[in-house]
Amino acid sequence: MTTAAIHTPASPACPALDRLTALGLSLPPAARPLGNYESWSIVGETFMTSGQFPWISGDMRYTGRLGAEVTVEQGYDACRLATLNAVAQLHDALGGDFSRLRRIYRVEGVLNVAEGCFDHPQALNGASDILVEMFGDRGRHTRMIWTNPVMPRDAFCLVYMYAQVAPEQAR
Amino acid sequence: MTTAAIHTPASPACPALDRLTALGLSLPPAARPLGNYESWSIVGETFMTSGQFPWISGDMRYTGRLGAEVTVEQGYDACRLATLNAVAQLHDALGGDFSRLRRIYRVEGVLNVAEGCFDHPQALNGASDILVEMFGDRGRHTRMIWTNPVMPRDAFCLVYMYAQVAPEQAR
Amino acid sequence: MTTAAIHTPASPACPALDRLTALGLSLPPAARPLGNYESWSIVGETFMTSGQFPWISGDMRYTGRLGAEVTVEQGYDACRLATLNAVAQLHDALGGDFSRLRRIYRVEGVLNVAEGCFDHPQALNGASDILVEMFGDRGRHTRMIWTNPVMPRDAFCLVYMYAQVAPEQAR
Repeated sequence: MTTAAIHTPASPACPALDRLTALGLSLPPAARPLGNYESWSIVGETFMTSGQFPWISGDMRYTGRLGAEVTVEQGYDACRLATLNAVAQLHDALGGDFSRLRRIYRVEGVLNVAEGCFDHPQALNGASDILVEMFGDRGRHTRMIWTNPVMPRDAFCLVYMYAQVAPEQAR
Repeated sequence: MTTAAIHTPASPACPALDRLTALGLSLPPAARPLGNYESWSIVGETFMTSGQFPWISGDMRYTGRLGAEVTVEQGYDACRLATLNAVAQLHDALGGDFSRLRRIYRVEGVLNVAEGCFDHPQALNGASDILVEMFGDRGRHTRMIWTNPVMPRDAFCLVYMYAQVAPEQAR
Repeated sequence: MTTAAIHTPASPACPALDRLTALGLSLPPAARPLGNYESWSIVGETFMTSGQFPWISGDMRYTGRLGAEVTVEQGYDACRLATLNAVAQLHDALGGDFSRLRRIYRVEGVLNVAEGCFDHPQALNGASDILVEMFGDRGRHTRMIWTNPVMPRDAFCLVYMYAQVAPEQAR
């Protein structure tokens, strides 16, 4: 059984991380869960995360509702940050080696959106764009979107990610 | 990698489409996504869609909330139409050949429901019934349901569909 | 095709059920769906449920919102009960034999939460804790959480569960 553990070795040459650096961004540290569950798991060739917040080291960067406390541009940034947290979990799960990644095939986003605001797909593009920028065709995905009026820790968003990964080498 | 593309060849003899025609219904054209994501993807034997609206060619047919602007009968029709959009994506993914379909095993519906209204399972039966009518036992599925107070484009519902498909023949 | 059916043979020696009994708890009878869908399905090695309520034999035990009509402790109990309903579906799907269970790898919870209340992760721990208590490492899972303001039958929560199961023996 493969379950979450905090180990993030250096990856000497990784185009995906290089592209992230070129954008002036970096992976946040893989966050620990808020309850009695795992941050990620791998079942067969399927990698999946639990919910990822728009936070860094426990500091929630975006709270409130799109169209009220959060602008579309901020919502875009928040979804990108939550997605980088998901990528950090993938990085952790793969022991820092993205070469085992076949493709990221699904992104699911829960957003807090004020009544009368219909711009959430644009905000969730912050998740989609960074995956395509980092991973190219291996980052092209289908997507689910929800709006929830009360979020854990009043976070603006939660992002979930699914990927297909190559089986681990026999040890 | 298999990703969405708009190509819908004719399928000369298809019982599922024949049953649809007999009901006085037809598949809408496969819709394009609202953002930087794919309308469908196939990973291994798993087909999945992104969110499908109750629309035809960009014309949203049902907006608002069940129990307020939308009656239960209209909600049923809306969930059926959104599901036909999901079936159109499947049709597109399989190049118009439903013989590769093993089963549709999951339907997920996000509905906008007014406070105090508890009829959403009946509305989502509009999704479930049409799949069983079209595909018989191959259309029997498990189901998830959510209520979200703010929907993209004020749509009444979003439907997501998962199916098991046979591997593509070598070309 | 494997679909839901109501058959729950006795399981002579089952550590998971023994642990449940030791906690003073028991599995509710596997509930039937609210609409034209299956309570569970197995696709390949993947078992999944439809939404499970905090009910016993049709008697909804927890309605309303966390932080209003439902306390955190009651919400914890409700998520545990809904999860036991999901485990009852798994028990039914496996013909009462949990030895075919490889792992429960995902729990998804939809909760009704009052504005300004951020304690839903603690409530959903009622789902997570019982799975780890019953199944040990085979019950460790990733998790999704949503808050929905209107729930079918005004239920406080809906729980969905995914597991990896061994293929059925040839008969």
